[in-house]
Amino acid sequence: MAYKGKADNGLFEFLLQMGDNCLILGHRNSEWCGHAPALEEDIAVANVSLDLIGQTQMWLELAGEVEGAGRSADDLAYLRDAFDFRNLLLLERPNTDFGLTLVRQFLFDAWHLPMLRGLMNSTDKRIADIAEKSVKEVAYHLERSTDLIIRLGDGSAESHRRMQDSLNELWSYTGEMFEFDDLNPSLVAEGLVPAAAEVADAWKQHVTAALKAATLSLPETGFIRRGGKDGIHSEHLGFLLAEMQFLQRAYPGASW
Amino acid sequence: MAYKGKADNGLFEFLLQMGDNCLILGHRNSEWCGHAPALEEDIAVANVSLDLIGQTQMWLELAGEVEGAGRSADDLAYLRDAFDFRNLLLLERPNTDFGLTLVRQFLFDAWHLPMLRGLMNSTDKRIADIAEKSVKEVAYHLERSTDLIIRLGDGSAESHRRMQDSLNELWSYTGEMFEFDDLNPSLVAEGLVPAAAEVADAWKQHVTAALKAATLSLPETGFIRRGGKDGIHSEHLGFLLAEMQFLQRAYPGASW
Repeated sequence: MAYKGKADNGLFEFLLQMGDNCLILGHRNSEWCGHAPALEEDIAVANVSLDLIGQTQMWLELAGEVEGAGRSADDLAYLRDAFDFRNLLLLERPNTDFGLTLVRQFLFDAWHLPMLRGLMNSTDKRIADIAEKSVKEVAYHLERSTDLIIRLGDGSAESHRRMQDSLNELWSYTGEMFEFDDLNPSLVAEGLVPAAAEVADAWKQHVTAALKAATLSLPETGFIRRGGKDGIHSEHLGFLLAEMQFLQRAYPGASW
Repeated sequence: MAYKGKADNGLFEFLLQMGDNCLILGHRNSEWCGHAPALEEDIAVANVSLDLIGQTQMWLELAGEVEGAGRSADDLAYLRDAFDFRNLLLLERPNTDFGLTLVRQFLFDAWHLPMLRGLMNSTDKRIADIAEKSVKEVAYHLERSTDLIIRLGDGSAESHRRMQDSLNELWSYTGEMFEFDDLNPSLVAEGLVPAAAEVADAWKQHVTAALKAATLSLPETGFIRRGGKDGIHSEHLGFLLAEMQFLQRAYPGASW
């Protein structure tokens, strides 16, 4: 298909969402490097970060191409300010407790996998290719995070409590995940991206089964926090970007 | 006196030390804004920050003039990287416990006041003028922090313990305070800055008396952590600068 350049905002925005989700969660996870509660966890979290940052590069490169304004993946990652980021608010939450990090990863992975599976059928070959390259990594992310949620949810009284608390705290951030097509319904109509309901069903099914096995309760609130998709972020994203972008801001155009 | 421009490294470096101390502690204190444990403390800490940032401006402006390379106070504050900062390591320590913030302030104030009193007699009129303008504010900072150290040290079991822990943690960072003249002994010989021993004596006398009144013990370690003066900083300064400098890095030359 032919891209419509700058006018094609729906697709550009969607690709930013995909790239920014990977970038922001990748950066948050990387903050654990050298600090995670166990060495194996430390390495695992760092590896997930590397996967996500690799995926970021592919999504943002394509986003830059679709935009047609000559911006590279690096330009998009390092030279935008918070209001131009399109990641889910969930992913910019501060790490605080390691349990929160694990639950966040689980909730995201359970969305990420069916999303990529849907995108593998995209009518745009480049989107389908990126999804294809990412899906194996993400299948492993979900396997790992699901396993941890079950072991810790159905673990000691303390680990159960910390998982449940984290789940309660993050739950209202999950609704935003399923609103990726409202900017431009034609994305779905044209077969570029899967229908939101399809992804939501797969997510709900996986999450419900995993939480049951983990002896954790599904939070009941229907309240949805929104903003990421519209660039309305929490203050946490500003601090994250200040750190993440420092090198490129202080030394413009720096390369190895 | 006539400045020697770039060649006069001793004085330029000394002025950076004065400015950077005020800037970094000012920024650290400002991080409490809206988060301090009591409203009155919140306002007091913010006011101390404002005083210190005002003093920063005077010291760095003079530093830029002495350097003679056309750098303004803002250039020096916002466009240097960590290895060019000359603040004491003590002042870049993360805030963590509020007790640590109070003890850090006390240890610094007790140095800052005799330092400024010495600088009021500087043979350089501009240095003497800045010292004169700052000394009233700093006399009040020291009065306040001394009062708090005594009230909390000689307070509840918990407040005593937290003060003592903070003191033990920060003590090894205090030795660096008294090495400000070793870069260029002629600064003292020319009467530009006071002798280090003079400042050290006043500091020790004040600190010893205050800790006694606070029923706190003087830590016994003679170990001195060094590096700030030579630009060898902890990772904490990098994160602080990333946040502090974001606006100017992202929007070069931005003004109100």
